[in-house]
Amino acid sequence: MTSRPDEHPPSQSGQITQALAQGRNKRVRKLLHRMHPAMIAALLERLDAGQRSALWQQVEASREGRILAHLKGDLRRSLAGEAHDAHADEAAAPEHGSGDGISQLEAVRHALEQGKLKRVGKLLHHMHPAKVAGLLEALPPAERNEAWSMVETERAGRVLAYLHDEISAALAQQLDLEDLISAVEHLELDDLVDLIQTLPHELGSRLVHATAGARREQLESMLSYPEESAGGLMNADVIEVRADVQAGTVLRYLRLLETLPPQTDMLMVVDRSGRYQGALRLSALVTANLDATVAELMHTDVVGIPVDTASRDVALLFQDLDLLSAPVVDDRQRLLGRITVDDVVDLIREESDRTVMQMAGLDDEADMFAPVLVSSRRRAVWLGINLVAAFLAAWVIGRFQATLEQLVALAVLMPIVASMGGIAGSQTLTLVIRGLALKQVQRGNIRVLLNREVGISVLNGLLWALVVAALAVVWFGDWGIGGVIAVAILINLLCAALAGLAIPLVLERMGIDPALAGSAILTTVTDVVGFFAFLGLASVLLL
Amino acid sequence: MTSRPDEHPPSQSGQITQALAQGRNKRVRKLLHRMHPAMIAALLERLDAGQRSALWQQVEASREGRILAHLKGDLRRSLAGEAHDAHADEAAAPEHGSGDGISQLEAVRHALEQGKLKRVGKLLHHMHPAKVAGLLEALPPAERNEAWSMVETERAGRVLAYLHDEISAALAQQLDLEDLISAVEHLELDDLVDLIQTLPHELGSRLVHATAGARREQLESMLSYPEESAGGLMNADVIEVRADVQAGTVLRYLRLLETLPPQTDMLMVVDRSGRYQGALRLSALVTANLDATVAELMHTDVVGIPVDTASRDVALLFQDLDLLSAPVVDDRQRLLGRITVDDVVDLIREESDRTVMQMAGLDDEADMFAPVLVSSRRRAVWLGINLVAAFLAAWVIGRFQATLEQLVALAVLMPIVASMGGIAGSQTLTLVIRGLALKQVQRGNIRVLLNREVGISVLNGLLWALVVAALAVVWFGDWGIGGVIAVAILINLLCAALAGLAIPLVLERMGIDPALAGSAILTTVTDVVGFFAFLGLASVLLL
Repeated sequence: MTSRPDEHPPSQSGQITQALAQGRNKRVRKLLHRMHPAMIAALLERLDAGQRSALWQQVEASREGRILAHLKGDLRRSLAGEAHDAHADEAAAPEHGSGDGISQLEAVRHALEQGKLKRVGKLLHHMHPAKVAGLLEALPPAERNEAWSMVETERAGRVLAYLHDEISAALAQQLDLEDLISAVEHLELDDLVDLIQTLPHELGSRLVHATAGARREQLESMLSYPEESAGGLMNADVIEVRADVQAGTVLRYLRLLETLPPQTDMLMVVDRSGRYQGALRLSALVTANLDATVAELMHTDVVGIPVDTASRDVALLFQDLDLLSAPVVDDRQRLLGRITVDDVVDLIREESDRTVMQMAGLDDEADMFAPVLVSSRRRAVWLGINLVAAFLAAWVIGRFQATLEQLVALAVLMPIVASMGGIAGSQTLTLVIRGLALKQVQRGNIRVLLNREVGISVLNGLLWALVVAALAVVWFGDWGIGGVIAVAILINLLCAALAGLAIPLVLERMGIDPALAGSAILTTVTDVVGFFAFLGLASVLLL
Repeated sequence: MTSRPDEHPPSQSGQITQALAQGRNKRVRKLLHRMHPAMIAALLERLDAGQRSALWQQVEASREGRILAHLKGDLRRSLAGEAHDAHADEAAAPEHGSGDGISQLEAVRHALEQGKLKRVGKLLHHMHPAKVAGLLEALPPAERNEAWSMVETERAGRVLAYLHDEISAALAQQLDLEDLISAVEHLELDDLVDLIQTLPHELGSRLVHATAGARREQLESMLSYPEESAGGLMNADVIEVRADVQAGTVLRYLRLLETLPPQTDMLMVVDRSGRYQGALRLSALVTANLDATVAELMHTDVVGIPVDTASRDVALLFQDLDLLSAPVVDDRQRLLGRITVDDVVDLIREESDRTVMQMAGLDDEADMFAPVLVSSRRRAVWLGINLVAAFLAAWVIGRFQATLEQLVALAVLMPIVASMGGIAGSQTLTLVIRGLALKQVQRGNIRVLLNREVGISVLNGLLWALVVAALAVVWFGDWGIGGVIAVAILINLLCAALAGLAIPLVLERMGIDPALAGSAILTTVTDVVGFFAFLGLASVLLL
């Protein structure tokens, strides 16, 4: 995987054509960078038209002129024409903005189709790393890899940080190790930790070993915390001050630092043994008298977050207290690092994403364009689970075959009973799942909630039982069927409310995320109860 | 609604007992505050035991001693005992923290049950306004109103800002107008704007009129922007500086201000005509040489957000660029205000909340404990919509009554076909809805996505068609049924993929939120197609 052309120097040209054929454009550019323009020109002349055009796409713009000078007339004119096109493209490259996302994706795909990789590189160069990440995710894998090969190494690390896990891991592994190491060199530590956690173990530890000194130590300590905890969210880039110094001294000290870590809104006040004492906001510092002490200026209401706090609770804390950053402490109140709001924003977004995706049995970190076979296998699991539920419902119906044979109208109406129960139950279920997430459904008020949900299901049960019964009587001209379906709907809506309340509470107590399995279990209950109540009542009362 | 006891002075005692009976505890406290301790003692002696105890709960702790001194022996001892209990409670009041949410709710409900309102007030006093809001939302309405009457006026405004719309409006209207006005006096303008937008129009404009001077002007201008836009999110509390002054001058200016608005991480650089030029981060200011100019220090990469930008795009921008705050500008680049990340955090949380709630036909701003009749009516709408879909499916089945009569096994198996289609379709639907939200599903890659989803549905269709067919053959011993159900499942999964992709795209183009209606429409499609394919094929091939 390493690229040291000086060990056993085979022909440079051979290496380049090989790398070109493998689509390893970053390596091609690196090799070209070390060659003399005349050599490159000679190589271009030896290649066939397709290879030549592909190679030309990897030549740095600043060297094009000198290479062209070494080329013969025809060739020079044709390549110069391509260069001209590329520069015209650059002039037309869209500026960043919200409305033109569509055209950017289309522009990149268009350029990829035509093999104009230089143009792709320029388009990507003008985009924020977050946008580059979004665009890469929106590309099918083959095109994504090509586009990725045109992202500059020094920006690649930040792009990786914005990608979903599966894609991030795949693209990181496409880089040569040395490129990957230099790509992540300037990454914030928390982003680097996230990346390492998505990579195969061996590659991850290589990245750790490639880090030196204090950064390595911090990295290893951060990797020791679980991902979904305050420790997994925190960064070590804290600026510490002592409580007894004066504001003027702090300001002089900061001037010596020249820059502060990104997202710094406060300095952390610690005592001699590193114990957290309070937060000195920059906004308090800049408005303070120069002779005021840090102790007078600091806020002690910003409480240190214990390092093992669940990340969901960290998010609630940031949201409730409107924090921009917060200190993280160990069990002896020693300052370990800080959490910044940008990571909390990502966390909230990811959590909400996960909830919605999980409800459909999908993985939110998966690649939208993963190979069809891989995606099929993943989704098959969820379909299989639901098939068990469906067969359970079918089995219930099967118990009543004799009844159905005598009264086929029941077969027509039975999905209505099941479906109304499913809808009513999912309303209760959703309400309770949200209430649990916001910590508003608690032991102290479950009884109140139960009474309400039962009340609502009785009222709606009565209403819709009457409506459905009336329609059934009109349709089939049979009062008995109307009566049976009315009672069945009432029973099913009542059971739906009870199940919608009980399922998430039980799952939560079992440590299972209610959003994951709740809906599938609920549907099973409402289907089974619906079919059983309707067909059972019918066979007792109507036959 | 106004409380001016000096206009037509009826007996103060009469006013107090009346307010007490109405549960208007804030008013009771206000009236008591103006009375002499001896008068209060006399009043306490005249009341019956229940009223007396209730009134005593509203007496300020600092005046208890002086009132007790005016009371007779027995009475003094019994009330002094209650006072002692209350202070013991206070000592035991739990500190803020994440783990003890359950006990807080139970503690408050327990105190409410016993009528110990003073204790409720003390418990609430020790909680952050966000926690108070959470606790109020977790209480059933009657208890909520009682607890609300014990929130100090000066904290009531911030509590209102944390509440969901419906509850916030209800509780705001329980305050006397003058209390409401003083409660919101120190509220940040964006929170005040949100509150006014939830209130009845007349009450809202009274609040606007009660605001004075520059704050009133800013308030009115902010109210003119749509809620879901950058204008609706922004605050006017910007600190402006000019590009040509030196860092030292800026620092001296800030020291004169003494405090900065909350969440200030940057000053905004504007020119003479108020046009936005760049942002001066506090972290850049504190590390700068004192003689550097603002122009040298400011960041021009923080672009002004146009005031009419959709709030969803604002959220994406904050997330992608890791912003803490951002300037908002009009179409001539004049600085109007700023958006801070705490509001964006709320926005993201609310949006994700809304998505999940909408999928079950619920309103995310509604009160979990709204009156049963109100909640029933709201939920009935969604049940009604789904009933139409269910009857559509029933109608399809009804077309095949003759077939079902001859082969009742079809009735047993038909829910399986419909259910598998529903699950597979919801996977595609969820993926596409998320892709649209992240702007990763675009015109430029829909064809790729279509091919993939069709491929996946064919693979999974084949797999599960075989499994279900095998089970059906084993169950009913009929190869024909196995064949028919296999083909029907394949057809339904294919249609589910197409519908799952097409429905959100069409809804999005029609300007309807796909998360709202997508799932209901999809289920209708997969039910109808599933029943039609299965029963239709069966009547053609098996009879």
